[in-house]
Amino acid sequence: MPPQYLRIPGPTPLPDAVRKAGSEQMVGHRGPEFMELVKRCSEGMNPYFRTASDVMILTSSGTGGLEAAVVTFLSPGDPVLTVSIGNFGERFAQIARAYGADVTMLEFDWGQAADAQAVRAAIREMVAGGRTPVAVQVTYNETSTGVTNPLPSLAEVIRAEAPDTLILVDGVSAVGAIPMEMDAWDLDVVVTGAQKAWMVPPGLAMVAASPRAWAAADAATMPRFYFDLVRHRDALPKGQTPWTPAVGLFFQLDAALRLMEAEGREAIYARHAACGAAARAGLAAMGFELFADPDNASDTVTSALVPDGADWSALNDEFRVRGLQLAGGQGKMKGRLLRIGHLGDVTVDDIVTAIEIIEQGALAIGLPVEPAAGPAAARRAGEGA
Amino acid sequence: MPPQYLRIPGPTPLPDAVRKAGSEQMVGHRGPEFMELVKRCSEGMNPYFRTASDVMILTSSGTGGLEAAVVTFLSPGDPVLTVSIGNFGERFAQIARAYGADVTMLEFDWGQAADAQAVRAAIREMVAGGRTPVAVQVTYNETSTGVTNPLPSLAEVIRAEAPDTLILVDGVSAVGAIPMEMDAWDLDVVVTGAQKAWMVPPGLAMVAASPRAWAAADAATMPRFYFDLVRHRDALPKGQTPWTPAVGLFFQLDAALRLMEAEGREAIYARHAACGAAARAGLAAMGFELFADPDNASDTVTSALVPDGADWSALNDEFRVRGLQLAGGQGKMKGRLLRIGHLGDVTVDDIVTAIEIIEQGALAIGLPVEPAAGPAAARRAGEGA
Repeated sequence: MPPQYLRIPGPTPLPDAVRKAGSEQMVGHRGPEFMELVKRCSEGMNPYFRTASDVMILTSSGTGGLEAAVVTFLSPGDPVLTVSIGNFGERFAQIARAYGADVTMLEFDWGQAADAQAVRAAIREMVAGGRTPVAVQVTYNETSTGVTNPLPSLAEVIRAEAPDTLILVDGVSAVGAIPMEMDAWDLDVVVTGAQKAWMVPPGLAMVAASPRAWAAADAATMPRFYFDLVRHRDALPKGQTPWTPAVGLFFQLDAALRLMEAEGREAIYARHAACGAAARAGLAAMGFELFADPDNASDTVTSALVPDGADWSALNDEFRVRGLQLAGGQGKMKGRLLRIGHLGDVTVDDIVTAIEIIEQGALAIGLPVEPAAGPAAARRAGEGA
Repeated sequence: MPPQYLRIPGPTPLPDAVRKAGSEQMVGHRGPEFMELVKRCSEGMNPYFRTASDVMILTSSGTGGLEAAVVTFLSPGDPVLTVSIGNFGERFAQIARAYGADVTMLEFDWGQAADAQAVRAAIREMVAGGRTPVAVQVTYNETSTGVTNPLPSLAEVIRAEAPDTLILVDGVSAVGAIPMEMDAWDLDVVVTGAQKAWMVPPGLAMVAASPRAWAAADAATMPRFYFDLVRHRDALPKGQTPWTPAVGLFFQLDAALRLMEAEGREAIYARHAACGAAARAGLAAMGFELFADPDNASDTVTSALVPDGADWSALNDEFRVRGLQLAGGQGKMKGRLLRIGHLGDVTVDDIVTAIEIIEQGALAIGLPVEPAAGPAAARRAGEGA
């Protein structure tokens, strides 16, 4: 097997220290060592959420974290506005609907970011109709399209139009890789997942909630048990989780947080911005049509259209035999997109390598790609960013 | 730090091969390698569930598996009988209640098993009252008390009195360690968890469901999303999971299942029976009062009363400084029990070591223990079993 280049938007590659931590022996999850570990992991994430609230760690995928954000704070029948720009926006709405929320969808074309004025209009219409949203669901970074929403301006509009609404943010593929200011932007619930920026295998969802959210939890009546964040909040000061946690993943998260602290938050964000610039420039120079609106292109995942006449599956086979694991399209873009993940343990060199293999794969299926243009452009953009 | 002896009923110690698998690099969870891994892990568990149904693997603790068993198959208002013999029986009922089931509790004294005739009477009373149970919740092995229910005879009575009821079984600390015959006993949903007999860190719940259960799922109306087993069932033939799975834990489960297959199911069960006999004999010979009814004492966890006048916390400190991690009491038995876990990667030698340390700890706080009696009795019972 050739060297493997895992360039999907999660799970992301594990640094050596994180791999090593995965082989640690178990300890009791009610014992003193683990209690300290829980607290250290939770506190270690505050600088990336930028919140004074506690960060809770659930044993589930990111989707479980989104479910927790819904069921802990809402009641059946609650009007909810979902601002959707892709597959994960739709999923967030599906969760709310599954639990009986009265969901209004505000959908934007895939590849585009949400427009703040359209969000304003949607909320005004709901308010005028007597359906003031109890919550607004927003995706920070839409993994399926490679678009990052202008979250600060969206949050500002939402708060202005509906001061008491809960702003629930899917930050799964964003937090820890691009700037997040949970408190300053006045967000109420922010969710992320271990296998993204955090460089940890999947299985942990991290969630923080504002005082406004906790006040709502008391009266919220959606049924909840495993994903009841109140139980998580109450267990955390004791260094515990309400149910048996994924102990091994906590060891790995601890190791990853040490690496992140050593690198520094601003350096991490700059590295992701450089990788994003490199990926976009490399694909564009090869002649791929970038799918995301350039003004809102994501620095954690880049998407491009599969060229007309090319078959995604055949193209992907060429990548795979060369060791490159990319992601394809999701939902209605299945078979029509290629997506490069660049979050977590990734450098501009890694992106240049990925672009080189994409070039080889494209040439192998006969696409008209100018040799060497992509990698050179990726290198220039990544180093200039 | 002295050598550590992790003798709690989960997480259980990891064999070397399972630790090693924990350090593997990530792969894409939609790629061909992982698809094969999912199928291999699922099929590798059938011999321990003893079912022709598929074993689904969820990313959650065992409690999440119990929630899946409730929300996938039941509707709000459904009459449910919960046969409870301890803390986890109560939890199973709490989950059903949280989602609106109309739960009737049939509780037995902690330390006792459920009585089949009392179960029969409870069902008859529900049927006579027009509340035929849609489901009966039963704990196979009650971790909080160290009691194993006589599941075949309970299932027989339940099926005789309510032929269409769904028998939902919490097998978390049982399956893979003691005999389970899901199909022969006509059980409908069986749940277990990675960190028990399976020798894997916590974070995976495994669930199998009968054709009778799947038929009920179509009409079931409890809200469900993350724990919707229908989505898991439909994804499994493609080697997928509906949400991003805990990839690293699948690597570890795969390694553990290979060890289990090499040892052989009957040998595994015999080893657990020997460890159970050793633990009970050792504690009794030291003068500890065993908590579980001897006829139904568990072969995966042994409980004994903290002697009158002794303080659990002080006693536990003596164990901990000697490297022994035991569990205490849960729920209403908090501070009143000590529990030795002996499931997964455990031998009679390990139990003798634990009994030796318990003896040292007991002597250290001044309990009147006859020196050397416990370890000798444990050895004899373990080797004679």
